[in-house]
Amino acid sequence: MPYKMTKAKNKSFHVLVTGGAGFIGSHLCEALLSRNYRVWCVDNLYLGREEFIEHLKSNPRFDFRNLDLLDKPKLESLFGEVGFDAVFHLAANSDIQRGVKDHSIDLNLNFLTTVNVLEAMRSAGVKTIIFPSSSAVFGETDDVLTEDYGPMKPVSFYGASKLAAEAYISVFVGNYGFNARVIRFPNVIGERCTHGVVHDFIKRLKNDSSRLAVLGNGKQTKPYLYVGDLVVAILLVFDRASDPLEVYHVGNEDRTSVAEIVKIVLEEMNLTGIPVEYTGGSGGWAGDVPRFQYDIGKIKSLGFKQSYSSTESVRIAVRRILETPWL
Amino acid sequence: MPYKMTKAKNKSFHVLVTGGAGFIGSHLCEALLSRNYRVWCVDNLYLGREEFIEHLKSNPRFDFRNLDLLDKPKLESLFGEVGFDAVFHLAANSDIQRGVKDHSIDLNLNFLTTVNVLEAMRSAGVKTIIFPSSSAVFGETDDVLTEDYGPMKPVSFYGASKLAAEAYISVFVGNYGFNARVIRFPNVIGERCTHGVVHDFIKRLKNDSSRLAVLGNGKQTKPYLYVGDLVVAILLVFDRASDPLEVYHVGNEDRTSVAEIVKIVLEEMNLTGIPVEYTGGSGGWAGDVPRFQYDIGKIKSLGFKQSYSSTESVRIAVRRILETPWL
Repeated sequence: MPYKMTKAKNKSFHVLVTGGAGFIGSHLCEALLSRNYRVWCVDNLYLGREEFIEHLKSNPRFDFRNLDLLDKPKLESLFGEVGFDAVFHLAANSDIQRGVKDHSIDLNLNFLTTVNVLEAMRSAGVKTIIFPSSSAVFGETDDVLTEDYGPMKPVSFYGASKLAAEAYISVFVGNYGFNARVIRFPNVIGERCTHGVVHDFIKRLKNDSSRLAVLGNGKQTKPYLYVGDLVVAILLVFDRASDPLEVYHVGNEDRTSVAEIVKIVLEEMNLTGIPVEYTGGSGGWAGDVPRFQYDIGKIKSLGFKQSYSSTESVRIAVRRILETPWL
Repeated sequence: MPYKMTKAKNKSFHVLVTGGAGFIGSHLCEALLSRNYRVWCVDNLYLGREEFIEHLKSNPRFDFRNLDLLDKPKLESLFGEVGFDAVFHLAANSDIQRGVKDHSIDLNLNFLTTVNVLEAMRSAGVKTIIFPSSSAVFGETDDVLTEDYGPMKPVSFYGASKLAAEAYISVFVGNYGFNARVIRFPNVIGERCTHGVVHDFIKRLKNDSSRLAVLGNGKQTKPYLYVGDLVVAILLVFDRASDPLEVYHVGNEDRTSVAEIVKIVLEEMNLTGIPVEYTGGSGGWAGDVPRFQYDIGKIKSLGFKQSYSSTESVRIAVRRILETPWL
C-alpha cells in the first residue's frame, strides 16, 4: 500500500467489522488482519457467507460472531465484552433490487442497524465509525457528484436508507464527539461478490454456456472498481481523514458498458462466439440509476490511486471470480 | 389570499391533516375548511390538544380521529374508509429539545410515522403529500440555503429524522407516481404554539411577572414567521407546485434577536421595567442551530408575500397568544 500508516500498529487495536462475512467485509477483514489488528467480524449471514471467512478462522486475531444487529441486547453485550477502537459498519443489504420488492429490508438492514450500532457505540464510549454509503443517496442526475453535492433525491429504498443513516451519523458527530468517515462506494466487483451484472453473467454461463441473454441493449455504462482498490481506499480514509465528519467519494473515472462486460466475460471463459441475446431497451429496473459520475478529487488528494481502470477492474474481477470457488 | 386557487373546489375534496390538532395543523384545518374541503383531522394528542380544534368540531365537513400513526392497521383502515385526495402530513415531534433527551421520539414520530403514511397512501392509491420539513436538515452553516443546497449534515435528531423522511418521500415520487411538496418551515410562531422562546417567555411571565430569566446573552437571532403566513404559503405550494417532487423554503428574510423578543413580550404584557436576567453565553442547547438563512426566491416566484416581517411576526404572535385562552 502506497500510503503511510498513522494509526496504532500494536496488536491490541480492536476493530469491529459488521457485515464482515460479506463480499467487501471479508476483503476488509483480511486487510485489517494484515495490519495485525484484532478483528471482530460480525455477520448475520443474510448476504454474507461463512465460507468467505473460512480461511481467516485459524488466525488467533480473528473472531467471528453470527449476530443480527437488530438484536440490541446481543449487540450491546458484544460492546460490553470488547473495548473496540473503531467500527467498520459494512453490514447492509447491498442488493438494491431486493429492496424494491420489500421496503422493510433496507429500512431494517441499512438504517435501523446503523442506529443500533451508533447507540451501542455511544453507550460504550466508542467514537470512530467508518460507514459505506452510496451514490444512490443522490438519485438521478447528470451532474458530477462532489461530496457536498445537493439536492439529494434518492429513487431507491437502498439510497434513502443510506441517506437516513448518513443523517443519523452526522448527529452523533455533532453531539457525542464521534469521528465518522462516510465513504460513498461505487459499483464494486471482485471475488465473493453476491450479486450484480458480472456475477449474474458468470453464473448464467456456468449453468448454460451455449448462449447468454442480456437485459437491455448493452449500452448502459457504469464505473466499476475492483474490491482490492476499494479496501485500499477505505484504509486510506481511516488513516488520513482528520475532521470529525468526513465524506469521500471513491470510484473510477472511466466507465464500462454492459456490452464490454459481456465481451470480457466471454473472453475470460473462452466462450467468444456464443450467441448473445439482448432484450433491448435501457435494461434498467425500478430504483436503478443508470449512470452517475463521482468527483473523486478529494480522495485523490489523500493519495488514492486506483490499480485498475473500470474496464481493467471488470477483467480482474472476472478472472478472480473464475479462479476462486465461491460462484 | 392573493393567489388563484387551481385545485378542485367542490365539497367532496377530501383531505387528511395528520397532526391536525397541533399548533400549525389546527390553523391549516381552519384554512382548508374555509375552502369547503372535507377535512379529516388525525392526531394522537402528543403535542396537539383537542381544545385547539374544539371550535371546528361543529363543522359538518370536519372530523377528528384520535389515532397514532404508528398503529398501521388503524391507519390503513382509515385510508380504506375515506378516499383521500391529498394528505397534509404535519404530525411530528416539532420540539427539537425533546428529541435530544430521547432519540426514539424523532425516529418514531417524525420518520417512521412518515414511512407508515407513505405506505398507507400507496396501498390506497393516494398520490399527493404535503410534508413539512425544516432548515434543521442542513445542520450548521452560514451559507444562504437554497432548496438544492448541499451538504446536508444535521446536528439534531429532529433534523436527521426530517431528512430521512424527505429521502423516503423522494423514493415514493420516483417509483409510485407520487406528487410531493416538501416545505421546509422556519421558526413559526402564533397562537396555540406549544413550545419555543415566545411561548416560554409568556408562560414564565404569567407565572411570575416580577422578573424574567433568559438563557444566553440575548444576541441570538433567528427569522420568525407568523403561523397565518405559513398557512398561506402551504396552500400556495399546494395549488401551484407542478413537478412531482418540489421543495420550497418558507420564511422571513429579516431576523429578530432574543433581546428584541423580550422587549416585545414585556411591552405587550405591560411589564416594561421588570428586571431581565441574562444567564450569558450563546444560549444554545445541543442540536440547536443558532442561525440559518433561507433563500426564499423560489416560493416568492409562486407569488408568496409575507404579511409580517420577522419582528412584526413576533409582535402579532405575542398579541394573538395573549388574546387567546391556550397559554
